[in-house]
Amino acid sequence: MVKVGIVGGTGYTGVELLRLLSRHPQAQVEVITSRSEEGVKVADMFPNLRGHLDLAFTVPDVDRLAACDVVFFATPHGVAMSMAPELIERGVRVVDLGADFRIKDIELWEKWYNLEHTCPELAQQAVYGLPEVNRDAIREGQLIGCAGCYPTAVQLGYRPLLENGLVDHRRLIADCKSGVTGAGRGANVAMLQAESSESVKAYGVPGHRHLPEIRQGLSGMAGRPVGLTFAPHLMPMIRGIHATLYSILKDPVGPDLQTLFEEFYRDEPFVDVMPAGSHPETRSVKGSNMCRISVHQPQGEDTVVVLSAIDNLVKGASGQAIQVMNIMFDLPETAGLEQVALMP
Amino acid sequence: MVKVGIVGGTGYTGVELLRLLSRHPQAQVEVITSRSEEGVKVADMFPNLRGHLDLAFTVPDVDRLAACDVVFFATPHGVAMSMAPELIERGVRVVDLGADFRIKDIELWEKWYNLEHTCPELAQQAVYGLPEVNRDAIREGQLIGCAGCYPTAVQLGYRPLLENGLVDHRRLIADCKSGVTGAGRGANVAMLQAESSESVKAYGVPGHRHLPEIRQGLSGMAGRPVGLTFAPHLMPMIRGIHATLYSILKDPVGPDLQTLFEEFYRDEPFVDVMPAGSHPETRSVKGSNMCRISVHQPQGEDTVVVLSAIDNLVKGASGQAIQVMNIMFDLPETAGLEQVALMP
Amino acid sequence: MVKVGIVGGTGYTGVELLRLLSRHPQAQVEVITSRSEEGVKVADMFPNLRGHLDLAFTVPDVDRLAACDVVFFATPHGVAMSMAPELIERGVRVVDLGADFRIKDIELWEKWYNLEHTCPELAQQAVYGLPEVNRDAIREGQLIGCAGCYPTAVQLGYRPLLENGLVDHRRLIADCKSGVTGAGRGANVAMLQAESSESVKAYGVPGHRHLPEIRQGLSGMAGRPVGLTFAPHLMPMIRGIHATLYSILKDPVGPDLQTLFEEFYRDEPFVDVMPAGSHPETRSVKGSNMCRISVHQPQGEDTVVVLSAIDNLVKGASGQAIQVMNIMFDLPETAGLEQVALMP
Amino acid sequence: MVKVGIVGGTGYTGVELLRLLSRHPQAQVEVITSRSEEGVKVADMFPNLRGHLDLAFTVPDVDRLAACDVVFFATPHGVAMSMAPELIERGVRVVDLGADFRIKDIELWEKWYNLEHTCPELAQQAVYGLPEVNRDAIREGQLIGCAGCYPTAVQLGYRPLLENGLVDHRRLIADCKSGVTGAGRGANVAMLQAESSESVKAYGVPGHRHLPEIRQGLSGMAGRPVGLTFAPHLMPMIRGIHATLYSILKDPVGPDLQTLFEEFYRDEPFVDVMPAGSHPETRSVKGSNMCRISVHQPQGEDTVVVLSAIDNLVKGASGQAIQVMNIMFDLPETAGLEQVALMP
Repeated sequence: MVKVGIVGGTGYTGVELLRLLSRHPQAQVEVITSRSEEGVKVADMFPNLRGHLDLAFTVPDVDRLAACDVVFFATPHGVAMSMAPELIERGVRVVDLGADFRIKDIELWEKWYNLEHTCPELAQQAVYGLPEVNRDAIREGQLIGCAGCYPTAVQLGYRPLLENGLVDHRRLIADCKSGVTGAGRGANVAMLQAESSESVKAYGVPGHRHLPEIRQGLSGMAGRPVGLTFAPHLMPMIRGIHATLYSILKDPVGPDLQTLFEEFYRDEPFVDVMPAGSHPETRSVKGSNMCRISVHQPQGEDTVVVLSAIDNLVKGASGQAIQVMNIMFDLPETAGLEQVALMP
Repeated sequence: MVKVGIVGGTGYTGVELLRLLSRHPQAQVEVITSRSEEGVKVADMFPNLRGHLDLAFTVPDVDRLAACDVVFFATPHGVAMSMAPELIERGVRVVDLGADFRIKDIELWEKWYNLEHTCPELAQQAVYGLPEVNRDAIREGQLIGCAGCYPTAVQLGYRPLLENGLVDHRRLIADCKSGVTGAGRGANVAMLQAESSESVKAYGVPGHRHLPEIRQGLSGMAGRPVGLTFAPHLMPMIRGIHATLYSILKDPVGPDLQTLFEEFYRDEPFVDVMPAGSHPETRSVKGSNMCRISVHQPQGEDTVVVLSAIDNLVKGASGQAIQVMNIMFDLPETAGLEQVALMP
Repeated sequence: MVKVGIVGGTGYTGVELLRLLSRHPQAQVEVITSRSEEGVKVADMFPNLRGHLDLAFTVPDVDRLAACDVVFFATPHGVAMSMAPELIERGVRVVDLGADFRIKDIELWEKWYNLEHTCPELAQQAVYGLPEVNRDAIREGQLIGCAGCYPTAVQLGYRPLLENGLVDHRRLIADCKSGVTGAGRGANVAMLQAESSESVKAYGVPGHRHLPEIRQGLSGMAGRPVGLTFAPHLMPMIRGIHATLYSILKDPVGPDLQTLFEEFYRDEPFVDVMPAGSHPETRSVKGSNMCRISVHQPQGEDTVVVLSAIDNLVKGASGQAIQVMNIMFDLPETAGLEQVALMP
Repeated sequence: MVKVGIVGGTGYTGVELLRLLSRHPQAQVEVITSRSEEGVKVADMFPNLRGHLDLAFTVPDVDRLAACDVVFFATPHGVAMSMAPELIERGVRVVDLGADFRIKDIELWEKWYNLEHTCPELAQQAVYGLPEVNRDAIREGQLIGCAGCYPTAVQLGYRPLLENGLVDHRRLIADCKSGVTGAGRGANVAMLQAESSESVKAYGVPGHRHLPEIRQGLSGMAGRPVGLTFAPHLMPMIRGIHATLYSILKDPVGPDLQTLFEEFYRDEPFVDVMPAGSHPETRSVKGSNMCRISVHQPQGEDTVVVLSAIDNLVKGASGQAIQVMNIMFDLPETAGLEQVALMP
């Protein structure tokens, strides 16, 4: 059994880690921390866990965490970088679900997160946690900065096009739609049901923190800096991200895109290329670690539209972190992640 | 492995059986029927099942069904009673998720369902499929008429009071709230999102088909005919039933109800009596087979209020049917039913 | 034009007053206060008001408020009682949408609101603002304590039964369902869309602050203290209250209830008794000041079930306050309140 | 009073016409037709209209319709073209909310609607009903083909850019999001709340019927054929369209777009250019005839993103039709259309 510690268990990625890990056949949560909820039983806060988990929140304590094989940080940015160095020094492997270790260009990170990075060397060594792209590096990694939710949906969708050099890398447009759990579990008037349900809006169009992360990933795939417009939108639903990805084909009569996508992802357990003509629904991945993708070339013209759907809390966060853990510890990659999406 | 056949796989209880059985360690779906969708792959209709189930719908065929150990009917009333006799004769065990075999008083059944019952003797032999009440009979049963969704929530909530003779059995009021999947997957203007979301209404107050079923069950617990007012309401959510159960204590300073409920259900794997003062949320059981209950005696007066929450598609239908199957085939009762509710 | 001041304009009842008053033909909002948003244009906070209202929030100032004909308090309890005395002394009429002036038994008020009442004599003089019950007193009133949202739905539903002495006044059960705006616009984790949507729960079953208000009103109708169980529930929708009201007929073969209700409310502009057999939907009153009611006697037995639906922000708060104002200033009672409900 | 007839009153645009016209100071609905609901009182079908409208559905009858000043067709495509010729011959003015008279290229129309057009000459004479573009022609028009919902949001958003020749007209991308009422009121499994809520999906990416209409309109603005990719998405909400419009600036340091948009729409009563940096929410126009727009140039690069929000049933259908009628009959353009959006 892999012994797991979780720092920051009271947010949505925290409780989702608990939901998934409580049924994982080869991992066991040993420690879960929360400063504000010390002593509270996890199942008192999250009644879905009643009968499944008999742990209480504790104050973060490095000694207790260091007794784990792996520590997940389900925390806002800034927390992992303050605790990871000591854990890593003591041989614990660290998986950060937050943003501290995703970006290699520290200056860029500091600009977007408006914070000084306290362990820039570690950030350089960190492995970017998107298994489909980085599986081998993850296996050996000591510190993983898991891909964010939007970045996962966008990168998996664009990847076959960019790695095959099929589209104009300077004109990428990612129109993304997220459910409200993407905003976290903090008290926030804008996310009250009375405010956010029955409405759609864009946000962060002038600039969103996931932009540099996505650009870094897509540029890696393209082999040069990409031009990207990223417009996130808030959807009136709990879970799910839908990315609609536009790009311009260099050659509108090039290879068959459906076949190309299917072959590209043939062996991936968590990427499902849907039949030609499909439109993936976010509900078809609700609660599951799957990313469903379809590819369209409307009217046979030179614009290609890729549709990519994930559950932001699973493949976009906690499921991905567990997939990363499975790889790190040589467990079956799908262990604990075989849930069928809850539909309807 | 228990070989399972499913008649009527295109409704919500059908796809929910598939979601649950596709991860069941000791059962395997062999046949799934649908007249209208013959030849269609199940996963083409329900994309959440892509990668989990590689079956296509077939026309109902008794020979093929008779090769199964158990056949589930996830069909409207009237279907099971037409096919069950032959299957039972051929030694197959039958679990009906519909209403054909729930009511012992055939005349009453015929009145409420406005249909002639074609195998009244079988209905007499059938076991009522509510495991907490009928576990032993289910174990030996050849034909099970599973408890309906409202009846499950109401009966589990009232049972400790009625079996202990604590309340006035003539004045029971069950105010019940159900998500929209309770209405099934038929095309129906009233259940369009544009019609049913952002609204609440009662329905069937003059009389609802679950009334005689609930009355029969509660009367069994009370040892005499109960008086019951049952008012179902439609809630703007996908899954879940919440029953608010009112009754009058014979003795307002009788036994401590919290303790009594906790002890009553201590050994039940799927009934969770919550701490004193709790209010169960339907989301805390979403996708799970759990029934969460709390009991209140407001202001210390003589009215007792029991709150009971289930997922109508799981403990109220498909999960219950699998629990019944587990009992029938001497599998662990919780096999395939240990999902943690999806929350948020 | 009636000159209107509003204290506390940033909550849901505040913005709803603005929505309704901005189209009122004979009233004009002159002052709107908010300590926290001083100087902010109202339409910057509530973009639905862009183009309809050109006011900014100001700090509460008695001189400025005293220049109005009427001041609405759209504030939490405790605020109105601190400012009303001076305004009333200066001849302004005051309409409190909050709870400070609803209850005559000050000791009871102080117990439930856990606060010392600072002007108990004023509370005695205050008129309870439920126009259907108190129209004449409202006309002459200097200070009105408007009926709360649940109390409005419950009282209008029970009134024909209680005033006619038809039911057992000791055994009333009000099972009520409210949309999330009932909880106000404060930042609150429990009311995030991710928490409250797709779920139903009861709350406050042991005791809710509207209980003494409802009891007081129903007791007035019955002519003696009633026995009432009140169970509020949170519904996953923005607006609306649905009250399901149970009581026991003294004589099950008494007067025809449908006719009695229709005649009782024949002349009320905002109470709509629906045809026999109806179930009012909350969406049928969304955004309107209407209360729709139906009455059932299930199976002809002795329990009567009244269904009552209002928009909690309109007939349950801001619309009611405007109806009260119309009466006070001898305007047509329906002025500014003739909106058709938004459906779908 | 303008005498109004409505053909097809049982769909969402029909009931929305009734909601708006029942409060219109200078128009009166005289006839409302429905073959299937003949004799049914409108308010029995749509309870929000109880007390506001005392009409019953009648079978479509040309004589009765010909006694009106204007007839609205709130019907699926194909209906208006079968009845409009006779009405027009008899001097009635016709406003089609459907698609029969929007497209000038009849061959194109027939291809997309898969139907023979029975009065192509009328289609040539018809005026395209988008008041901001075509006000003068509408004033004189005998037959108006009202702009569709997506086309309205997209055209109003792109118009300042295209008419000023600021963007590359060959590379327009309209990523559009619509609430479920866009799909109409027909019984349809895909639009059940259990199916469409809590999910997002694209649809019609290979080709949607609004594409040729939008292309025709944008090409008119650009003065030459535009290149357009149009991807509609289904949102889990009742009302609202949000269009996210991407285009490439010819000169990234050209005129200030915020100023340009504000001046462009300064005199339009129903177009609201929001302050720089804003993101319009669909709820801010719910139930109102307003289109709210904001314009962004993310990171100062050469891509411009316009956000445009309308209520699909009001500015995208019935409100627009009434605005058209107001213009045709020299009424104030805003008559009957001054509702404040219902928010929350």
